[in-house]
Amino acid sequence: MAVKVGLVGTGTVGGGCIDILLAHKDDFKRHYGIDVELARVCSLDAAEAEAHGVGHLFTNDFNEVINDPDIDIVVELIGGTTFAKTVVLGALAAGKNVVTANKALMASSGQEVMDAAEAAGKEIAFEASVGGGIPIIDPLKHSLIANEIETVMGIVNGTTNYMLTRMADDGMDYDEALKEAQAQGFAEANPSADVDGFDAAAKIAILASIAFNSRVTMDDVYTDGITAITPVDLEAARDMGYVVKLLAIAHRRPEGIDVRVHPTMIPEGHQLATVNGVMNAIYVVGDAVGETMFFGAGAGSGPAASAVMGDVLEVARHVQQGIGPIVGCTCTDDLAIIPMDELRSKYYIRFSVADRPGVLAAMTAAFANHGVSVHSVVQRGKGKSGVVDVVYVTHTAQEKAIRAVMDEIAALNDVLHGEPSLIRVEE
Amino acid sequence: MAVKVGLVGTGTVGGGCIDILLAHKDDFKRHYGIDVELARVCSLDAAEAEAHGVGHLFTNDFNEVINDPDIDIVVELIGGTTFAKTVVLGALAAGKNVVTANKALMASSGQEVMDAAEAAGKEIAFEASVGGGIPIIDPLKHSLIANEIETVMGIVNGTTNYMLTRMADDGMDYDEALKEAQAQGFAEANPSADVDGFDAAAKIAILASIAFNSRVTMDDVYTDGITAITPVDLEAARDMGYVVKLLAIAHRRPEGIDVRVHPTMIPEGHQLATVNGVMNAIYVVGDAVGETMFFGAGAGSGPAASAVMGDVLEVARHVQQGIGPIVGCTCTDDLAIIPMDELRSKYYIRFSVADRPGVLAAMTAAFANHGVSVHSVVQRGKGKSGVVDVVYVTHTAQEKAIRAVMDEIAALNDVLHGEPSLIRVEE
Repeated sequence: MAVKVGLVGTGTVGGGCIDILLAHKDDFKRHYGIDVELARVCSLDAAEAEAHGVGHLFTNDFNEVINDPDIDIVVELIGGTTFAKTVVLGALAAGKNVVTANKALMASSGQEVMDAAEAAGKEIAFEASVGGGIPIIDPLKHSLIANEIETVMGIVNGTTNYMLTRMADDGMDYDEALKEAQAQGFAEANPSADVDGFDAAAKIAILASIAFNSRVTMDDVYTDGITAITPVDLEAARDMGYVVKLLAIAHRRPEGIDVRVHPTMIPEGHQLATVNGVMNAIYVVGDAVGETMFFGAGAGSGPAASAVMGDVLEVARHVQQGIGPIVGCTCTDDLAIIPMDELRSKYYIRFSVADRPGVLAAMTAAFANHGVSVHSVVQRGKGKSGVVDVVYVTHTAQEKAIRAVMDEIAALNDVLHGEPSLIRVEE
Repeated sequence: MAVKVGLVGTGTVGGGCIDILLAHKDDFKRHYGIDVELARVCSLDAAEAEAHGVGHLFTNDFNEVINDPDIDIVVELIGGTTFAKTVVLGALAAGKNVVTANKALMASSGQEVMDAAEAAGKEIAFEASVGGGIPIIDPLKHSLIANEIETVMGIVNGTTNYMLTRMADDGMDYDEALKEAQAQGFAEANPSADVDGFDAAAKIAILASIAFNSRVTMDDVYTDGITAITPVDLEAARDMGYVVKLLAIAHRRPEGIDVRVHPTMIPEGHQLATVNGVMNAIYVVGDAVGETMFFGAGAGSGPAASAVMGDVLEVARHVQQGIGPIVGCTCTDDLAIIPMDELRSKYYIRFSVADRPGVLAAMTAAFANHGVSVHSVVQRGKGKSGVVDVVYVTHTAQEKAIRAVMDEIAALNDVLHGEPSLIRVEE
């Protein structure tokens, strides 16, 4: 008897899932003995279901999906943390296995969801919540578990990577790159979740939780976006042999977990440096395996549906074989989150400042006042109206000291023009 | 009660596995509830077991491992297809689950091994047989199964990739690069399995079998090595915007499976082009997921042991939970192997020829005689002793025709000096 799937949400990803199921149903049965059938489709709009040829399965009431006694697996593709949470928890409570692509939910309420799954004795799978179609959660939960993972670090937001690529390759400024990304459908009308780094923060919270066996939530992640980055920064990086990426970074340290999202300079020879456009990549370092990297499309109908349907088929395999969840929550440790103030890094900081005598001396004094050793100071691109860019690159310093330097410079009378651009350097 | 593991083979990889087990045994229990215990260690040399602190588990008789009623999982790390096959089949027949890193065995006798596992109702896992520590078999068997895979293509031999990198970056010739690789421990005293492409052929046979759900054996794989490559080829490639890699390639075509190993030119912007030194990477294209790539160390004690122990822990998880094999043989289709003669590609061919009038005309006529359209002919580096390199780049042509051209040129009187270098171009 076929394993029955109820789909909640028929947008881009949901549509992709329906298409895969219809195209490959026979292949799944022939190749893997997995007999899986779409039983119900829920969304606000019947037209979406009809467009994918499953209008006869449509309902606009998710309760009809999560309470359908025939359904074995509920796929939640609404997104967000309100209705989606109700659906996920409701489905688990009703004894369904759940597959979701919901990074926000897993990064904010992961523990609650995992606990609900355990209480129900059902599976929760969420490969599509990070890196689109890239297999990364499954490798971390299976192939790589013999390792103590030291680092998980990646380009996990395609929108900002597209923008930074356009800015670096074509000299676009931030506003042009954003408009272009919006025109291409890569950025939302309100781009905050992407450009302010929140999307990436949710994803690294999920990855760090799995990699370090310790719960990390979105609120634990220090987050800077790319809004202050200009073409000057990308040129300066190139001159120094670096590229700028919005990286989501998590390191295991003796003191705890160092987890953050911010624009980052990485050497141009690093494997992540050539990941351009909307592509994503996640770089993992383990004590046995050494460096590994997982690369692919981080978003889009096909890639996300590939990950969702991979989960659906795996869970269906278990349902058919009468197997319960093989891996539950693995957050068995309770590691501290290292405060951002304690980060030690090299820093690139660009200030747009008034072009007048004494300014450079006052700024450089601020670095000295807080014990931050400066590696280089370069003036770049003299502006038209008495404004100039001054770029500082520091030796390794503590975040706390850098913050004090920046506060001191911000307090200088009539010096700063606009937000400074601060980029940390990851070697 | 702990799941008991018997290890056969205590070389580089076996030693790595012992080290991981001893270092992380408690972590596996705490994080994943997996209680796994090394129960027996077999090799020819007690000193190897002693060196890793497990001399008390030593035996030199593999029968004592595969027939030990307490042992649940036998790990075969001998390599080769003689003793290793006896151990693997013997262990399965004795009702043990088996984990192996043996590419030669799986690429030549994969069907027999899978059948034996099925007959025994036991698991056979072999992640470490391809790409060292890189998770690739598991993603192909799980996360990516919603896709119809179109291409699996990779750098799966670290030795030749190291040599080609040294030749490209440092202008070494083949012999120098080989000596360097041998000095570094990356190449064997008899390097044939690596430099002639057989190691890569075994690996692509395994990957293609899984990706296309149709058995591909090593004998099905057309194989050229790197022995004819010179620094001239690498320079010429660079001038054209390409890099040369020994690629293992498998494409699904309407007519069947196109599978081969040979030096290949890929555009320098391709994700595989920046995979250098001993690193491996496997590039996968699926109909839903699009392009993905898996990167990491393809060999070495830690990486290979990471993959072996990943398999061991997964099987141990199943043993503890009383679960049988979740995925068996997936070669349900019987696709044809496309004969190499029918390949259509662009070709780069360098001939070292006598530097005298008429030679170029005769060679170029050979291309015309077989209907092969030439894109460019360039003479490179005039040799000392009346020998010159002539490089042809063709438009898309059929392999059969190229072979006829090469035969005709080889038959020209006193023209060729040494083996021509033929490099296919993959766009």
